[in-house]
Amino acid sequence: MQSVGKSVRRVDAVAKVRGMADYVDDIFVKDMLQVKVFRSTIANGRVKKLDVSRARALPGVVVVVTYEDVPKHTFPTAGHPYNKDPKHQDVADRRLLTDRVRFFGDEIAAVVAVDELTAVKALRLIDVEYEQYEPILTAEAALIDGAVEIHEGTKNIIARSEYQLGDWEEALAQADEIFEDEFSTSTVQPCALENHGAYAYMDASGRVVVCTSTQIPHICRRVVGQALGIPWGRVRVIKPCVGGGFGSKQDVVVEPLVAFLTTVVGGRPVKLVLTREETFIASRVRHAIQFKLKTGVKKDGAIVARQMTAVSLNGGYASHGHAIVDNSGEKYRHLYDQLAIKFAATTVYTNMPAAGAMRGYGIPQVMFALDCHMEDIARALRLDPLDFRLKNLNKTGYTDPILGITVRSNGLPECIAKGRRLIRWDEKKAARRQQSGPKRRGLGMACFCYTAGTYPLNLEIAGARIVMNQDGSVQLQVGAVEMGQGSDTVFSQMAAETLGIPVDMVHLISEQDTEITPFDTGAYASRQTYISGMAVKKAAAEIKDKVLRHCGLMTGISPQSLDIADAWVVDHKGARVMPLAEVALDGYYNLACAAPFTADVTNSATTNPLSYGCTFAEVEVDLATGKVKVLEIYNVHDSGKIINPQLAEGQVHGGVSMGLGYALYEQMIFDPATGEPLNNNLLDYKLMTAADTPEIGPAFVETDEPTAPYGNKSMGEPPVMSPAPAVRNAILDATGVKFNQLPMNPHRLFERFKAEGLI
Amino acid sequence: MQSVGKSVRRVDAVAKVRGMADYVDDIFVKDMLQVKVFRSTIANGRVKKLDVSRARALPGVVVVVTYEDVPKHTFPTAGHPYNKDPKHQDVADRRLLTDRVRFFGDEIAAVVAVDELTAVKALRLIDVEYEQYEPILTAEAALIDGAVEIHEGTKNIIARSEYQLGDWEEALAQADEIFEDEFSTSTVQPCALENHGAYAYMDASGRVVVCTSTQIPHICRRVVGQALGIPWGRVRVIKPCVGGGFGSKQDVVVEPLVAFLTTVVGGRPVKLVLTREETFIASRVRHAIQFKLKTGVKKDGAIVARQMTAVSLNGGYASHGHAIVDNSGEKYRHLYDQLAIKFAATTVYTNMPAAGAMRGYGIPQVMFALDCHMEDIARALRLDPLDFRLKNLNKTGYTDPILGITVRSNGLPECIAKGRRLIRWDEKKAARRQQSGPKRRGLGMACFCYTAGTYPLNLEIAGARIVMNQDGSVQLQVGAVEMGQGSDTVFSQMAAETLGIPVDMVHLISEQDTEITPFDTGAYASRQTYISGMAVKKAAAEIKDKVLRHCGLMTGISPQSLDIADAWVVDHKGARVMPLAEVALDGYYNLACAAPFTADVTNSATTNPLSYGCTFAEVEVDLATGKVKVLEIYNVHDSGKIINPQLAEGQVHGGVSMGLGYALYEQMIFDPATGEPLNNNLLDYKLMTAADTPEIGPAFVETDEPTAPYGNKSMGEPPVMSPAPAVRNAILDATGVKFNQLPMNPHRLFERFKAEGLI
Repeated sequence: MQSVGKSVRRVDAVAKVRGMADYVDDIFVKDMLQVKVFRSTIANGRVKKLDVSRARALPGVVVVVTYEDVPKHTFPTAGHPYNKDPKHQDVADRRLLTDRVRFFGDEIAAVVAVDELTAVKALRLIDVEYEQYEPILTAEAALIDGAVEIHEGTKNIIARSEYQLGDWEEALAQADEIFEDEFSTSTVQPCALENHGAYAYMDASGRVVVCTSTQIPHICRRVVGQALGIPWGRVRVIKPCVGGGFGSKQDVVVEPLVAFLTTVVGGRPVKLVLTREETFIASRVRHAIQFKLKTGVKKDGAIVARQMTAVSLNGGYASHGHAIVDNSGEKYRHLYDQLAIKFAATTVYTNMPAAGAMRGYGIPQVMFALDCHMEDIARALRLDPLDFRLKNLNKTGYTDPILGITVRSNGLPECIAKGRRLIRWDEKKAARRQQSGPKRRGLGMACFCYTAGTYPLNLEIAGARIVMNQDGSVQLQVGAVEMGQGSDTVFSQMAAETLGIPVDMVHLISEQDTEITPFDTGAYASRQTYISGMAVKKAAAEIKDKVLRHCGLMTGISPQSLDIADAWVVDHKGARVMPLAEVALDGYYNLACAAPFTADVTNSATTNPLSYGCTFAEVEVDLATGKVKVLEIYNVHDSGKIINPQLAEGQVHGGVSMGLGYALYEQMIFDPATGEPLNNNLLDYKLMTAADTPEIGPAFVETDEPTAPYGNKSMGEPPVMSPAPAVRNAILDATGVKFNQLPMNPHRLFERFKAEGLI
Repeated sequence: MQSVGKSVRRVDAVAKVRGMADYVDDIFVKDMLQVKVFRSTIANGRVKKLDVSRARALPGVVVVVTYEDVPKHTFPTAGHPYNKDPKHQDVADRRLLTDRVRFFGDEIAAVVAVDELTAVKALRLIDVEYEQYEPILTAEAALIDGAVEIHEGTKNIIARSEYQLGDWEEALAQADEIFEDEFSTSTVQPCALENHGAYAYMDASGRVVVCTSTQIPHICRRVVGQALGIPWGRVRVIKPCVGGGFGSKQDVVVEPLVAFLTTVVGGRPVKLVLTREETFIASRVRHAIQFKLKTGVKKDGAIVARQMTAVSLNGGYASHGHAIVDNSGEKYRHLYDQLAIKFAATTVYTNMPAAGAMRGYGIPQVMFALDCHMEDIARALRLDPLDFRLKNLNKTGYTDPILGITVRSNGLPECIAKGRRLIRWDEKKAARRQQSGPKRRGLGMACFCYTAGTYPLNLEIAGARIVMNQDGSVQLQVGAVEMGQGSDTVFSQMAAETLGIPVDMVHLISEQDTEITPFDTGAYASRQTYISGMAVKKAAAEIKDKVLRHCGLMTGISPQSLDIADAWVVDHKGARVMPLAEVALDGYYNLACAAPFTADVTNSATTNPLSYGCTFAEVEVDLATGKVKVLEIYNVHDSGKIINPQLAEGQVHGGVSMGLGYALYEQMIFDPATGEPLNNNLLDYKLMTAADTPEIGPAFVETDEPTAPYGNKSMGEPPVMSPAPAVRNAILDATGVKFNQLPMNPHRLFERFKAEGLI
């Protein structure tokens, strides 16, 4: 391997460091108008009266649009590939603007003005009267008999699902002990560096062009078409640089509104960039999920029966809806084995911000529940928690009975061994004394598994296009989206590797434009390196084949004995035959058969490998203050072959930081009486900063996934999945107290320690 | 035909009418610097001393670059496809800046400043001293023994060529009469609406990006690479809207300099837009060519032997050089038949603006000489000039003995018949009385032929890429360049026709960008509808095939019995089977085989059909003033099938106007003592205006060219080729005076009429 497996410098590093990378809000288009949204100041209710006349009269206001002016049909916003089967389509429960207020900040009207300040002033001139209902902020309140329906006819239930495998009663009867427990996670916000923003205009043919910070340009195109009720081909979506998304940009948040508004102002460009406060409440948050677990175990630690029920809080609109908790139920099934298993889940509407995709897609939630529960079982049975997990792990060769996907590589046992070594688990356990002081130390760990896409639940297709230039360098276009995660770099490495050229001879076009970019469903599900990477590899292989055949024609040497290395065509002994540039030049200009070497490939994947990993953490708990200090943390991954170690480490750093925030600090808080968000800003919301983050130890166990382009598996989301349960288990180890609710912040710890008599 | 053959509205009409189309000078990039070129005020000489220190010191001047600062190698500028054979490569005789001055306005230094005014001021602060030589403004002066060499070692000859077919002496011996004559044409400038302009910057990876008004983005990329001495893949060329080119933008004029200058200022964007005065002298002009013709004819009008020698004046740099006059020699051979033919040509350097490609590429020149000569022979032999031409025309089935291209369609006899009818030739001839007053009327006509590309002299390749959207509309990307001629519309019609969808379901991306656009050598040689059109047709056919196969899978109906009409899949009886959108949607989202319907095609043409046509004109000559009034003019074309009649008529209107300007008014004039241009502006240069242009009668004889995508042949350049000789022959008919020199402007007519005793 020349390029793959190397810590190649990010291809976008210079542009981003020098400020040459353009994000949506950096782009100014002539005559651009600014949009501000008039948001509800109640969480549940109905607009009785709305008077926008004073706002409309303000000089500089071009138009004020209200819920009365928008199309009356509903549309979905989740960034899932379209499904022709209505049963598998996302819930369409949103209009562009609404008089039925479903969360504090819901969108009632929009002001379009010549500048932002005027638009803000106009907002203040809008008069509104509400009919107000009790805000529904919990699952209990949502499901109580006679609860106000947030969406009519739903009984506040978005969906329910369940499955059962094996004879559960019979399996449970074999158990020596049965464990039951409950866990709950909090509502958190991804807090990507760049807020949501987009601008739209109409081109000369009347088509709507949307430039947006999105993970899913092609899906966004479809949703905008649905929202406006126009053919999807009449919409064009352009994605410039994206400053992070973590899933909340796998949702179509601001695009339909700006797309609609430009049609109202005759095609003039209109821009809407959310403030941080708006991004908190009006983009997407992570589902808070409540889990009940019941597990039957034999004395030797063999799990015989498992049951999980979950209730997922979705906020005022469905967005990704039930798919999140269903994913929890799926990975809960994949990680450990048993004779019988049951799962049942409900997703409910509440009067909170809409929950959607967020890094891990239900798995940080379920792994918190599952691997805390596993820890507790091991401790109750006085089994070594590592051995207990290892004993019950699914193995290579496992085929999921529901989805039919097969595990062909599983490095989790090695990951556990590696984490155990790195943190000196056994040494520390052996040295452990009875702790009695105000600061207690503990060790904990937790495991997870994850997929590399959504197959077979959804289609998994990705496009790549390569054209070789006359100098042997290539242009690479992908539909897959760089959003900070490094995919552009990884694709450049893959193309370089397959083509036998240095990475700097790959010129990747980072901007996606549905007008010209190959189709790809987008950046989510940690699918890009695996699914889109295979498209790149196939395209590069096709180019290479054409090069070698052409060189064969030029030289009379059999193409199958030729190869490319260091931008030279070489023979089977590695001897240089001809510079690649010479073959490329001849390909372009040979009068007999002129044609540039091109490839345009769609990869349609029908496999979906599991990644695995674990976190080992050592913490010091200050009983008096309830503060937890993470002393050491190792986040160990079987993500197959690592394409770029430095980028993979970057993912681990970010993911562990996010996971620790999830464990210890982050939680969106709402006034229980009004549903008003109380900390939707970066001062009051306790996001981890670099100063809060301990040294993080990324580690990898490189298996070789046979279905992958280069043995690789998913890597983007996995780092966030196991830190919270590992920290929880370490706190338990340190203090003997089980924290089953996130976040484990000082005031919660303090209260429990008091209750437990520790302080 | 649903779309092809219809006067579909230009796809860019609304954008251009509404001012939404962006040309180079409409685009402003942050931190953009302005360039002004310091030009010589002598026509032939050498810079002895150059002092730019005062200019450099001017506040706002970022850098002043002189001939001392630029790479020392030379590069070519002609927009020809690259040829690997050094013998067939364009003459590389230019540096970015020069101390050897070769025309009045040659480029010595460049100022880069924060704005245009500062740059202009800085120019005035540059001090220069020259060593001055006698300007060479004629072929005679260039070729005289001991003439100063404009380029060292050339003896002022760019190239010579000749051919002979048949036994010329033996053929001539069979002639009953031999005619000899001389003709000469003038230096004219295309005067496209938009002057030449480009800006360049460096991207984050250090690659040079040039945004330019060009007909040849991919060739421009190569030439910039050659000029800067960097791999071509390190250059990116973007073509926004182009406001006409007529061949002068088939040359790389301003791009290498801005590309170089951005590298000097650390990659900041630098823009250079020429003024009209600069465009006149520093872009490209039409070669003035002097012809000698000798023709042996039998009494019955059969031509037995022909000979032509030509000297072409190229100006100070080679640009397209000898290729122009070689093309004259080729079409001279194609139009009429004989037993033996000879051609010899020389292209010389002079101290005038560089001559390059201009609409017709040597053919307006040679058709002026050839068809005036034919007229004179007919008159001398008292043959009907129409019958004389018809008798000697080449026929369908003719294979050119040098190039090997075969005529498969030739509608010229019908074109002549049509023009004859339209102008009521016979009726007017019959009614003709002896004319004696001050105003005399006359009828004239002339023929031409032209090719549809450059094959087999150059490669002829063009790329097209189509992706079908979910709604059955398509994205169409072409490498071919819209420059006002309507190619985008024609390609949209072709794609619509082949796909069975309305034209507004074809979304064509008009901007070319070498980073993403399929490779195409560009807009020249009237090749686009024929060569690039075939690429579009092939791509559309591939998409259609995929659609029908997929519909076959969906329905169980054999794809070969299916077709697409009005965006529906229909069966062999025309009954609707399924909306196209439904097939497209299933193509995207069918879990079993998801993949958008895509096609990426390179068309490599190995045919080159001849277009034919003629002009019939009636003029009224005012003997006293020497003014010529064109009373009626019909420009009749066999361009095969006409794809868009309205666009074709538009080409005729523009071409005839240009041809009449060539005939009657246009000529660049230089001071014979200094070589200074005397009329390089639109006030003094007598370009035809709408007010000067008579009613023009476009007419078409639609043959069906079997090698073409839709029976079509070249149409862009042909209208300009025959007006000048037709007008000349009409003046001859009116006055009995032969004008063998262009333009036939009032002062030239006045002098001749006086000399001939007519006034």
